[in-house]
Amino acid sequence: MALLSDVSEYIIAPNPDAPGLARTVQAVAADGTSREVRVVEERPLTIYLNSREIVTAMTIGDHPEYLALGFLSNQGMLAPNDKITGVDYDAEVAAVVVRTAVETSHEAKLAKKTRTSGCAVGTVFGDMMEGLEGLELPKADIRQEWLYTLSEKINRTPSLYLAAGAIHGTILCQADRPLVYMEDVGRHNAVDKVAGWMRSEAVSGADKILYTTGRLTSEMVIKCALMGIPVLVSRSGFTAWGVEIAQQVGLTLIGRAKGKRYECLSGAQRIVS
Amino acid sequence: MALLSDVSEYIIAPNPDAPGLARTVQAVAADGTSREVRVVEERPLTIYLNSREIVTAMTIGDHPEYLALGFLSNQGMLAPNDKITGVDYDAEVAAVVVRTAVETSHEAKLAKKTRTSGCAVGTVFGDMMEGLEGLELPKADIRQEWLYTLSEKINRTPSLYLAAGAIHGTILCQADRPLVYMEDVGRHNAVDKVAGWMRSEAVSGADKILYTTGRLTSEMVIKCALMGIPVLVSRSGFTAWGVEIAQQVGLTLIGRAKGKRYECLSGAQRIVS
Repeated sequence: MALLSDVSEYIIAPNPDAPGLARTVQAVAADGTSREVRVVEERPLTIYLNSREIVTAMTIGDHPEYLALGFLSNQGMLAPNDKITGVDYDAEVAAVVVRTAVETSHEAKLAKKTRTSGCAVGTVFGDMMEGLEGLELPKADIRQEWLYTLSEKINRTPSLYLAAGAIHGTILCQADRPLVYMEDVGRHNAVDKVAGWMRSEAVSGADKILYTTGRLTSEMVIKCALMGIPVLVSRSGFTAWGVEIAQQVGLTLIGRAKGKRYECLSGAQRIVS
Repeated sequence: MALLSDVSEYIIAPNPDAPGLARTVQAVAADGTSREVRVVEERPLTIYLNSREIVTAMTIGDHPEYLALGFLSNQGMLAPNDKITGVDYDAEVAAVVVRTAVETSHEAKLAKKTRTSGCAVGTVFGDMMEGLEGLELPKADIRQEWLYTLSEKINRTPSLYLAAGAIHGTILCQADRPLVYMEDVGRHNAVDKVAGWMRSEAVSGADKILYTTGRLTSEMVIKCALMGIPVLVSRSGFTAWGVEIAQQVGLTLIGRAKGKRYECLSGAQRIVS
């Protein structure tokens, strides 16, 4: 498999040689020989919404602002109409603060919640599901050929995955063109970075396809729907609830996409040959 | 690859045919034909420590008590000497309550924490790392042959992974014998279930090997060390921080174990041929 020599059709392509994303360690093989292998970095990043500490995520460390913005949006902690006044990354303390013009409804909810149970994590899934109420994904036909072309281009794109492994990728695509390719140790970070970029650039999901290397779980399907993207594709498998939610919101869900094979679990009517 | 017909050497083997763990859905293939595929379930389970709601995890749903106990132990929320007075699972509300004789230090910390920032998630990683201080893992030689035998037995064990995919497994082993094989949609749930079983049965990790299908990230390495298990093996890759922590605590870390190949990143001196 030859690597793509030209990645200029990407708006953001992976940058596997960027300093700080991977390092070389010594490995001892089964025959006792020692050799160098590349491994991805993994470091904590704490995300704040105004003055509230929300989460510490483990990340490779690139695009921290997009990660924070996308995480808060995808968790339903930032509503689409919340006005963002700043996203400040402080590398020294490994923190990103997302600031809004007024206190968000999530913060109000959190203040109430903490008086009773002390932790916000349990509320998150409910918040995400709430965002799906009344959601309608656009009709948007997709060509079978696009799926094959996208898989092939993505697989041949120089990436941290190819250089070091142990990482997930999420790629925002339009027709047969991959636009924004984000990677991270957590598959959710990769999709959150894409969401953060979309929100930052005010890009619509209506005519897009989201490709991920990770499994299609409920959370991944919900995130894709919240991003307004009608088609979600993965080379990996899927869970029952992921399939169920996709069917409920009318999302086209395609798993085990490899070469010219795939399994479509929902919304097959969008695929035209 | 023939399946193992006898899984009697396991104390707990996967039960892929148990009701409620997987269901059948319709998939449309690339050629337009429709067929049935098995998919794993994924459902929320809320874990409480005494009266505090700690987290809602997405799980396949088996062994909820072990999952809760192992999660709280592995996160450092339950100290090894905290006396557990009950683990109550309520299927109707999908919740597990772990009760201790006295309030744990984690709850005290949480009470303090929530007065300032309102969320506990950021404290968790620190709690986990704290548990590693002064930890010494036993010397325990392992034979290269055991690694090959374990991989082969595990791969041939009837599992949800083989039946439906999209799931991770963690297996507690002793020499070349797999003892407890837990599966879950989240790789961390699978290892937490093993930890919960070990705590419940007061089983020592000193003479054990932990095998996981998931990647060897920092959190996975920390959990294995907290469980007192000196050897962690995976068929997948690893991150730089995972390797670094393994080296710090003297854990034998083996990645990309497939057939008779592997890469040992730390503690190679434990492996004898």
